[in-house]
Amino acid sequence: MELDYPSLDRIFHPRAIAVCGRITDPYKWILREYFFDPFRQAGFGGQLYLVDAAGGHLDGYPVFPSLSDLPESPDYVICCVAAAKIPDLMKQCRDLGVKTVHIFTAGLSEIGEEEAASLQDEILTIACSGGMRVLGPNCMGPYYPAGGLSFSCSFPTEPGSVGLICQSGGHTTYTIRLAADRGLRFSKAVSYGNACDVNECDLLEYLAADKDTKVIAAYIEGTRDGSRFSEVLARTAAVKPVVIFKGGYTEGGGRATASHTSSLAGADAVWDGLLRQAGAIRVYSIEEMVDMLVALLHMKPPSGNSVCAAGFGGGSSVLATDECERAGLHMVPLPSETRDRLKSFIPAAGSMLRNPLDIGFLLVAQQDGTFNGKPVSDWEDKIREVVPLKGDRGWGDFLDIIEDWKDIDLVLFHYSVDINPICMTEWRMGTAIGLMLAGMKACNLPKAMVIQMMVGKPAYSAIERVYRLYTEARLPVFTSMSGAARAIRRLIDFNREQPELARSLQEGNVPGNLRLAAQSASISSQQDVIVEIQGGAE
Amino acid sequence: MELDYPSLDRIFHPRAIAVCGRITDPYKWILREYFFDPFRQAGFGGQLYLVDAAGGHLDGYPVFPSLSDLPESPDYVICCVAAAKIPDLMKQCRDLGVKTVHIFTAGLSEIGEEEAASLQDEILTIACSGGMRVLGPNCMGPYYPAGGLSFSCSFPTEPGSVGLICQSGGHTTYTIRLAADRGLRFSKAVSYGNACDVNECDLLEYLAADKDTKVIAAYIEGTRDGSRFSEVLARTAAVKPVVIFKGGYTEGGGRATASHTSSLAGADAVWDGLLRQAGAIRVYSIEEMVDMLVALLHMKPPSGNSVCAAGFGGGSSVLATDECERAGLHMVPLPSETRDRLKSFIPAAGSMLRNPLDIGFLLVAQQDGTFNGKPVSDWEDKIREVVPLKGDRGWGDFLDIIEDWKDIDLVLFHYSVDINPICMTEWRMGTAIGLMLAGMKACNLPKAMVIQMMVGKPAYSAIERVYRLYTEARLPVFTSMSGAARAIRRLIDFNREQPELARSLQEGNVPGNLRLAAQSASISSQQDVIVEIQGGAE
Repeated sequence: MELDYPSLDRIFHPRAIAVCGRITDPYKWILREYFFDPFRQAGFGGQLYLVDAAGGHLDGYPVFPSLSDLPESPDYVICCVAAAKIPDLMKQCRDLGVKTVHIFTAGLSEIGEEEAASLQDEILTIACSGGMRVLGPNCMGPYYPAGGLSFSCSFPTEPGSVGLICQSGGHTTYTIRLAADRGLRFSKAVSYGNACDVNECDLLEYLAADKDTKVIAAYIEGTRDGSRFSEVLARTAAVKPVVIFKGGYTEGGGRATASHTSSLAGADAVWDGLLRQAGAIRVYSIEEMVDMLVALLHMKPPSGNSVCAAGFGGGSSVLATDECERAGLHMVPLPSETRDRLKSFIPAAGSMLRNPLDIGFLLVAQQDGTFNGKPVSDWEDKIREVVPLKGDRGWGDFLDIIEDWKDIDLVLFHYSVDINPICMTEWRMGTAIGLMLAGMKACNLPKAMVIQMMVGKPAYSAIERVYRLYTEARLPVFTSMSGAARAIRRLIDFNREQPELARSLQEGNVPGNLRLAAQSASISSQQDVIVEIQGGAE
Repeated sequence: MELDYPSLDRIFHPRAIAVCGRITDPYKWILREYFFDPFRQAGFGGQLYLVDAAGGHLDGYPVFPSLSDLPESPDYVICCVAAAKIPDLMKQCRDLGVKTVHIFTAGLSEIGEEEAASLQDEILTIACSGGMRVLGPNCMGPYYPAGGLSFSCSFPTEPGSVGLICQSGGHTTYTIRLAADRGLRFSKAVSYGNACDVNECDLLEYLAADKDTKVIAAYIEGTRDGSRFSEVLARTAAVKPVVIFKGGYTEGGGRATASHTSSLAGADAVWDGLLRQAGAIRVYSIEEMVDMLVALLHMKPPSGNSVCAAGFGGGSSVLATDECERAGLHMVPLPSETRDRLKSFIPAAGSMLRNPLDIGFLLVAQQDGTFNGKPVSDWEDKIREVVPLKGDRGWGDFLDIIEDWKDIDLVLFHYSVDINPICMTEWRMGTAIGLMLAGMKACNLPKAMVIQMMVGKPAYSAIERVYRLYTEARLPVFTSMSGAARAIRRLIDFNREQPELARSLQEGNVPGNLRLAAQSASISSQQDVIVEIQGGAE
């Protein structure tokens, strides 16, 4: 099957959307919270219509009895009607010249019953006869903040550079929320469900050519066309980093994907070989996926695996070492001359002046120096002003010494919140982590930070403004040492295998040569572009 | 070396405590927040004195210039003075007949310098000459809520049944907070640092005989007496489950433990063999340790590894399967007759009626049934009243059907919070998870629940009252599918290998025969008890 770029691009640029389903209680909230409110909140600029035979109003918006009652023909229809009613709705769509039908309704091929499977076939037949593209069934559809498309009021309205395709609506939602919390934003995300028409191959190829997408993440349960998939994936991974979380990689998991999205999961060894050969980065959870995106987008790749850990807490330092070495990083011993220089201003008691370095001292000492030991209400502004300088007997001197140490490729800063018996307050957390972030920001080596070991509400309430400090500075911050170590190790490998892509990302560019792709509007020229892209990292 | 039970027991039962250190700014907060405030908050019933040559007052309490100025001789001294001043303080302690010196001060053997190491030796020599026990150096000391001992105002004041020994003060603190958040409470916890005198062997042996301790958790960086350790551990693990997190299990990690607590980490293979042979349960992080404690204390051990997953969300169901199978559990296919019975009241659309089962429907349907579809302010009380019954076309029927299915050993309920695009509120989270908890509570099979995929502050703010629901019911709830699956697998193995211990725990008993231990007061009789304990699970 060939890529029909324009038909895919139209999914993201509808002129008029009609949402069809039950707009009476007790079902009304579904349409309202999944589509109606999010579109309005995301600033969708086109027309938004509601369709339900029952008529009535929602928030003052009229509810039209049928598609043909609308004042104009929609080009995008969201179908939330019961499964049995879909073919009728599809026919109406065809008659009105609708371009995209996004089927939210579940209960099609994934339930594993013959009747439902033939219904899905019927849907596809009608779509083909009308030249319509079908998204789903059993999916949440697109999130495209730049175009005002969204399915949750909790998603950021600012766009970004992550392209996501995801066969589970729940995983799409969680990924967007988790990534947003970590400072990432999205170009386009698509929950694509059963993939009866638009599938993982189409979407990967589309995102490969998308000028706003710098990295691609995918949660995939299966594919119906292994050879096209492996070919598309290889081409895509040649122009942009592709992070893949394959769901259903165990035997039982494979059965589960069949009943979730009617996917053929395939043997794990086959998938592993395929992903490896194509140059994709494989992960095993959404948390790992988000960690990998943070590493790719916010971190300068280390050229080797020798790490210096600089953190707060002895037990945390031991843990940092074990987790780093378990992931294939190497905690190199500190040379004695480096140790002596550090000892000139960091007391040995309460510190660890080996590698890993426990330098909790720097979080307190300079904190007192900067704020005269007194809480100030504008700590966030004060922290932003901190510039570590040589001769400050604090972070400036620390960085000066560490940057002279030629054996290391990377500095891993870490702060474990709930290891300190004192009661954590916003000011305490903000100034301590803030000073470490200021130090990290000034560090000229490849670097990352871990803020971890947070327990529940008190810590999460206190840390909100800290998040703002690092997300606005686009600093690579992770939430567990194991997650950081794994992602960094994968980044080092990626950088070794695809140095041009990695460098291009660092320079803030969309990796591949995509100018032509963006201009392209026809199937055939798009195919040419894709072929060109293959060797075209600029 | 033999166990001196009375001297260890005195650590937890001081009559008068003196805290010695700097009680002037900018150091005052250390003594106040680590010791002075926590003791008062925990309700320590003995005398609490402050000692600093500078004199003065703290919160109206007089600060005495020296130990000899106190109105009585303390039996427990917390030493926070500079390292070089410790020997002098120790001599004063000896002269006053102090029984325990807890050295908070760091900068002794762990900094790897000869002078500091001989200082530590000197400290030990003075202690021996005065018959004093030394805790530390470089440690936070005991947390014993039943006796009013604590080092953080954030720790629960209610006692429980977990005994913890931990070579890192930070790990001790994080473990107590994390475990408390998960509904666990402690009999006694000890941060024991460099272990120059009181060490892991003493503490394990002590907890083995402690009548309030049902399970033991330990974070250990190393031991100086491998043969005593393996012998003590084997005896301890024969009477109570012992969960061990060995820090410094990689090569670099081993170097790190030396600079953290001057521990000899030892080769990992040796440790692994030792732990396995002794019957300890090995874990690799504090999160895994707490998961294992939850499993041991709150979960009925499944007799086999066949699991049924019943949860919310398709992607989450696939993930549940992969994580379970990865941990060695088996997601058995659902028999068609069971499926047919479920289909009689659960719609196929939007559900997954295989195993894993996606039964999000039950969270909404019965919610409407119970609360008439309207938010109520007292949802927490309403949830407590829910009793699933046969014929309710909800949880009651679901459990009835699942309990008839003879192939499974365990039901794993799961709820992924941030997979739902709607904005999460306390009421929504509380009623949905609450109904699942009510179902789980009524389930007669071995069971556990995972509440996972929470993103930051909104979720943590909303979930507070949900935590109360399950912690008060002592239900086994985990915060990640991977963590749950690992812990449950280890519980199954433990139950197979030590069925009597596991059964005894389930019956709410302290596993070993410890009556004599509690009465014992002399070294020799204590030793006899320990020997008796070996075969004495009652």
